[in-house]
Amino acid sequence: MKNSIYDKRNVTMMMDFYELSMAYGYFKNGNREEAVFDVFYRDNPDNGGFAVFAGLEQIVEYIKGMHFSDEDIEYLRGYDCFDDEFLDYLRSFRFTGDIYAFREGTIMYPNEPVITIAAPLIEAQLVETAILCIFNHQSMVATKARRIVKAAAGRSVSDFGARRAHGVDAATYGARACLIGGVSGTATVSSAQMLGIKAGGTMAHSWVMKFDTELEAFMAYARVYPNNCVLLVDTYNVLKSGVPNAIKTFDSMKAQGVELKNKGIRLDSGDLSYLSKKARRLLDNAGYTDVKIVVSNSLDEYTIKSLLNQNSPIDSFGVGERMITSKSNPVFGGVYKISAVTGEGGLIPKIKVSETVEKITNPGIKEVYRVYDENGCAVADLIADKGEKVDLSVPYRYVDPEKPWKNRYFENCTVKSLQTPIFVKGEYVAEDYSVAEIADYVRYQLENEIWEEEQRFENPHKHYMDMTPQYYELKMSLLHEMREDI
Amino acid sequence: MKNSIYDKRNVTMMMDFYELSMAYGYFKNGNREEAVFDVFYRDNPDNGGFAVFAGLEQIVEYIKGMHFSDEDIEYLRGYDCFDDEFLDYLRSFRFTGDIYAFREGTIMYPNEPVITIAAPLIEAQLVETAILCIFNHQSMVATKARRIVKAAAGRSVSDFGARRAHGVDAATYGARACLIGGVSGTATVSSAQMLGIKAGGTMAHSWVMKFDTELEAFMAYARVYPNNCVLLVDTYNVLKSGVPNAIKTFDSMKAQGVELKNKGIRLDSGDLSYLSKKARRLLDNAGYTDVKIVVSNSLDEYTIKSLLNQNSPIDSFGVGERMITSKSNPVFGGVYKISAVTGEGGLIPKIKVSETVEKITNPGIKEVYRVYDENGCAVADLIADKGEKVDLSVPYRYVDPEKPWKNRYFENCTVKSLQTPIFVKGEYVAEDYSVAEIADYVRYQLENEIWEEEQRFENPHKHYMDMTPQYYELKMSLLHEMREDI
Repeated sequence: MKNSIYDKRNVTMMMDFYELSMAYGYFKNGNREEAVFDVFYRDNPDNGGFAVFAGLEQIVEYIKGMHFSDEDIEYLRGYDCFDDEFLDYLRSFRFTGDIYAFREGTIMYPNEPVITIAAPLIEAQLVETAILCIFNHQSMVATKARRIVKAAAGRSVSDFGARRAHGVDAATYGARACLIGGVSGTATVSSAQMLGIKAGGTMAHSWVMKFDTELEAFMAYARVYPNNCVLLVDTYNVLKSGVPNAIKTFDSMKAQGVELKNKGIRLDSGDLSYLSKKARRLLDNAGYTDVKIVVSNSLDEYTIKSLLNQNSPIDSFGVGERMITSKSNPVFGGVYKISAVTGEGGLIPKIKVSETVEKITNPGIKEVYRVYDENGCAVADLIADKGEKVDLSVPYRYVDPEKPWKNRYFENCTVKSLQTPIFVKGEYVAEDYSVAEIADYVRYQLENEIWEEEQRFENPHKHYMDMTPQYYELKMSLLHEMREDI
Repeated sequence: MKNSIYDKRNVTMMMDFYELSMAYGYFKNGNREEAVFDVFYRDNPDNGGFAVFAGLEQIVEYIKGMHFSDEDIEYLRGYDCFDDEFLDYLRSFRFTGDIYAFREGTIMYPNEPVITIAAPLIEAQLVETAILCIFNHQSMVATKARRIVKAAAGRSVSDFGARRAHGVDAATYGARACLIGGVSGTATVSSAQMLGIKAGGTMAHSWVMKFDTELEAFMAYARVYPNNCVLLVDTYNVLKSGVPNAIKTFDSMKAQGVELKNKGIRLDSGDLSYLSKKARRLLDNAGYTDVKIVVSNSLDEYTIKSLLNQNSPIDSFGVGERMITSKSNPVFGGVYKISAVTGEGGLIPKIKVSETVEKITNPGIKEVYRVYDENGCAVADLIADKGEKVDLSVPYRYVDPEKPWKNRYFENCTVKSLQTPIFVKGEYVAEDYSVAEIADYVRYQLENEIWEEEQRFENPHKHYMDMTPQYYELKMSLLHEMREDI
């Protein structure tokens, strides 16, 4: 496996300037204390019921490689607002803190800390922008890809999006996120290379147009690629020219004793439902029931669902711009909020109040549990104080923060803690997973643990985000203190 | 100026696999002829009247640096479908063709060739994906930024989008595109460093929350940054706490004899119109008429227009996710279409027909002229056959392809050819422009050449895309041939 392109470049400087201005401010004020920040998001994309956590591997690479080069230091000196002592500090900067995170590929829900950074305040601040950028990008695309794969209902989906991605990284890491979301392949070579897999693809319209006739173009292709012969049939006219020429090509190769494998046709324009049905009939009538029909052209979960509702005989979907950019929801709103800071007597929980209830943060250092019923279904997530004992061997009273007056219990349930240590004192301590393993994990959870009702597109069930009584008390008491202060 | 991160990494492999499968197919079929491809787009984003061409500098860097490393060759060998001769060809691959393009920053319109690649077929195919990816990304963001800058009506706009960009490149090059579109600054340090400018930014909520009180936080900041003192006032309560504490801070520093420069407050939540008015009054009543009001929080051209329509006393806008992702239009549909290929007797024009008229391509090698009236206004673009004489010193008859039956003339007009050579036989021959020069060029055109009617958001005037009679004839004759063939 080729390493990520991050090992060939230093992305440390990809940060908002305010991370540096705050870092310097802390430095000058002598603030060397520890702080704790949580990464979480507030709303599921596309009004869905969940999101897929992706990007952890690149966050790890970023943290591991983080450093300011001499060139960076000289550039920052040019701002004329940082002193030599601070620039020397940056020159020897390494991340020395702790990071906890969900396993990559975990199904996640709003307002729970997916990643927690506990580090000297300056360090925790400097890593904010890149962590958010990577988390937001890959989680967004993985979540979108999962929706599209779901809509395809078992048919294969491939990522064709590179040309419409927001730059080279968006294509390369976006393809990675698509694979985590469950697509079966990508056309993007840089991504396939990085992941140690093969990319897929056959021909563009230019191939067909380059030759004097479509038939010549198809024959030339079949001769070079007898093992993967998917012909693009919509350059001139799908039913009058493209499909008949594809059949002629298959016939001719057979007559020449060449056995073509993985035969297919691809439709890239027009009414894909109508054309796929007509093409299927032409192919079947010619004896080519084994020829697969691949379609592409501005597909997403809604158009795919519609095609399948019309019983379109489609075997495979090539999905481009609407997956790689998550077109209908191209912003994933992950945020990075301080939840505790060292004060006298240890870490002091911090809460951000807001006029809008949803924007009030969850203070303190937390443990997030996923609660499973006796069938292994994830019935809720539970936020607890870090270190608090949560014993579900007996009925366990919890608080639904939206209805705190109710007395509710988990009975016959088990819990799993979702965050595990990724970095401890700057040392990477976690297990590596391949993208295939991460994708398998996503699939496993959705098939075995996550309610089908949370996976539907329309008005999905809202996952319960409960709190332990102790944690709920903490949050409420901080809120009350805060109110009195203002 | 730091060079682009492209010099530290090889992005050659960021391509759709079909570029390679076609390249190998051509290679095996002995197709070493030249081909011509055009890059163009079909629809203006956000139903606007134009787009801003951006990304050329990165396309140039990509082409200059293009090569397959030994590692790449070994990876491709693993596909078991390419022979040694082809892999050796790739190992010594360099781009040897010609590229013509509009100057970066040119105002562009649908269906005109902005970039033209004339190169051996295989080479022209291999560069497709990266050229489109870079062109689409930066043109999209530059166009969006321009709309937002237009809405801000002279007030400054800054890019705050890194954390919501689609990965590191999208943040870094997206910021570049924002600057081309006319924003006055970016918070993204990697981009500012690349461009040799300074990034901007002050503090996050975490700064305010870290301190025991908001006032302490503001005072600490003012002490470190007397020359750029913009205080974030919405952590607790804008009007009851944030603005009063900002005023106390300004007062206190004055009492200490410290002269603060560039004083400001930033609002990042709530009703920005209401809060900016109330905050303005509080500041003015305290004698701080010089304190600027900066606002941020999910802004775009529509929310900014609305704020200004309400006479909100805002001096500056920080724009994040909706600009860096072009949220309302996150896909820029640039395409790469073959327009000619060498055959017997030279280059043969190629046309792609389609059931939808808009998708029929413009065949052959073309010259694109911008036509200016006697006031220097760009009244139309004109597509001609390459090398065709276009003399506007006398009334010039042109064809409007949407109304070809009309006899129309340009009178008292001048023309400028929009494409210039960028690469000739693989050698870079063009002039370099800084981002500041590119941004100036965008501004110059919009203020002096492009009709105001094309710049409005609602139902803008559609720029005329005319043809010379000779070119129109060529296109029609190819279309007729094509029809007869099918």
